Amino acid sequence: MTDARRYHRLPSPFPMKRGGALQEATLAYETWGALSPEADNAILVLPGLSPSAHAASGDIDPSAGWWEEIIGPGKPIDTQRWYVICVNSLGSCKGSTGPASVDPVSAKPYGIRFPDLTLEDAAKANQHLLDALAIKRLACLVGCSMGGMTALAQMLLHPGRTRAHISISTAPQAQPFAIAIRSLQREAIRLDPNWNGGDYDDAHYPEAGMRIARKLGVITYRSALEWSGRFSRIRLDSDARQEDPFAAEFAVESYLEAHARRFVRSYDPNSYLYLSRASDWFDVAEYGNGSVAEGLRRICIEDALVIGVDTDILFPIEQQQAIADGLREAGARVRFEALDSPQGHDAFLVDTQRFGAAIRAFLDSLPKPGTA
Amino acid sequence: MTDARRYHRLPSPFPMKRGGALQEATLAYETWGALSPEADNAILVLPGLSPSAHAASGDIDPSAGWWEEIIGPGKPIDTQRWYVICVNSLGSCKGSTGPASVDPVSAKPYGIRFPDLTLEDAAKANQHLLDALAIKRLACLVGCSMGGMTALAQMLLHPGRTRAHISISTAPQAQPFAIAIRSLQREAIRLDPNWNGGDYDDAHYPEAGMRIARKLGVITYRSALEWSGRFSRIRLDSDARQEDPFAAEFAVESYLEAHARRFVRSYDPNSYLYLSRASDWFDVAEYGNGSVAEGLRRICIEDALVIGVDTDILFPIEQQQAIADGLREAGARVRFEALDSPQGHDAFLVDTQRFGAAIRAFLDSLPKPGTA
Repeated sequence: MTDARRYHRLPSPFPMKRGGALQEATLAYETWGALSPEADNAILVLPGLSPSAHAASGDIDPSAGWWEEIIGPGKPIDTQRWYVICVNSLGSCKGSTGPASVDPVSAKPYGIRFPDLTLEDAAKANQHLLDALAIKRLACLVGCSMGGMTALAQMLLHPGRTRAHISISTAPQAQPFAIAIRSLQREAIRLDPNWNGGDYDDAHYPEAGMRIARKLGVITYRSALEWSGRFSRIRLDSDARQEDPFAAEFAVESYLEAHARRFVRSYDPNSYLYLSRASDWFDVAEYGNGSVAEGLRRICIEDALVIGVDTDILFPIEQQQAIADGLREAGARVRFEALDSPQGHDAFLVDTQRFGAAIRAFLDSLPKPGTA
Repeated sequence: MTDARRYHRLPSPFPMKRGGALQEATLAYETWGALSPEADNAILVLPGLSPSAHAASGDIDPSAGWWEEIIGPGKPIDTQRWYVICVNSLGSCKGSTGPASVDPVSAKPYGIRFPDLTLEDAAKANQHLLDALAIKRLACLVGCSMGGMTALAQMLLHPGRTRAHISISTAPQAQPFAIAIRSLQREAIRLDPNWNGGDYDDAHYPEAGMRIARKLGVITYRSALEWSGRFSRIRLDSDARQEDPFAAEFAVESYLEAHARRFVRSYDPNSYLYLSRASDWFDVAEYGNGSVAEGLRRICIEDALVIGVDTDILFPIEQQQAIADGLREAGARVRFEALDSPQGHDAFLVDTQRFGAAIRAFLDSLPKPGTA
């Protein structure tokens, strides 16, 4: 199947918030639908930490995307009406420049010589792409999980460039529980001798560290409630078990194993470290004299939909409520939806019925493109 | 300071539930107070996975124990009235026989040649100690966390030997979230190249794996709520930070680090694996034709106090409720206390005010020793 990705070259040098600059950096993105002559129907979608820009199938790449049920003709984000763009974050490894990319100066992979990355850098890169696409004002900026934090950064750094916003299962800043989990994931990777200070290759790869990091991720992306119903204490067939006396014995263990196996070699460990740390660093309060509420009040948009689920332990629903309250105080018309999906943080990827309905209703309520 | 531990020799061979037997195995324990002539004032305390038998200070070892605020003269478990025994679980490494012990047959440490360990084996060993102490019937059996599961096993295997029971932050069986966490802790240890199939020494020690396992433990022993209040996004002083670009930066990370540092070399990694797996295996439903409720109905005691906290994510409060319901249906007088401690699973070690008050009131309600 053909790659539907397109590449946007960022200005070179591209200076970074915490110092340093990237040379000849690129952003990978995909698009669906057509931009209206007025350029007033663009929706930018910012994914979580790990997915690529392939959010949905299309003519060039018909394989299902990570938000296949949400984006497409007649779907909640209707590509017959909207021009939809999905970006792979700066620092990721799915086509955009990140630690796995070759540094044009040294002609070697950056590794941890990649400059400190913040979500503000990713936001600035996104906005540069929008400039290149001649989109003066997004009809809607959609951010999921880490992408939701990048979206907040983008609206803070580029006022007036976003008309409406959909905030999904994200946070205005990381709280200690989320920091602790992410810090432990990073430590597991760094403690793997094969990580080797960030210089690894396919033959010497920090597989053990990535396994632990991913499994810990999956545990915190879901909810205890869902798993109790789904796995209970079901055991694996004895012939599916390994000889190892401590091998997986319960169904929940083999579920984690399958997730880890799919992920470990498909995501760059250093990208994981950089984006994970960027998520810990991001803090709306930096824009509001130390106050999250005041930082959010500086975001000027017209409409917002804020969605979270009450079983999310990584981005708890109180944090979505804080975003909704802040945007409302800033003057936006805000819908807040606390969904009772059992799937925890991952619900936006899985419970597309509930999320899709909320997104569809919100987008339907916005002014029709071409009528502004 | 002098060691207050006493050692009880188990019958040799000591056959194990899942096969195999231990030779010349011992249990380490400590006692406080005096056994009454009628031997009717004995309270046995079973700790969680990691603490030793040193639950409280005493004449021989005046250092503070892990439940110092709960056990002692005039304290909630009043040693002027009760004869208190605390046992280090079979399979642990604080004086009792476990994988770090030398196998008298091979004259080498057991390592993972130690037979499969279940909490039923630990319960049987405890009961053997009580026989040796000529305690026909415990006035009260207190079990915390893993020790709470061992206590359930002990009452199921040895009916009529326990008069009253205090169940603290435990479960009648592990649910998938707890299994997933423990499985990941075990995997982190086993993936450490220095674990080396269970044969390590001080110079080649699975320190990285133990660090991850312990930090993950501490994360799940506490609650997000408590941490948000306690650590917020407080950062370490820049001079407390290491040069490593991914070193700890937030207070919550250095808190985890301090916990890991204290634990890693003080607990045997193989003991951790064995007791962790035993906790996953334990299931009251095995005693009730596949039903937890039916299993619990086979426990015949007179009084019970069941305590849990609603911020515990590892042993959720619904599981304490199930224990209380089951014991009540079995005919016991049951008090159920759902405490609103913010400290999660660890609350019984920290929020000794709330736990102490509940324990004191319950023990005061029992018949006075010597009056039965």
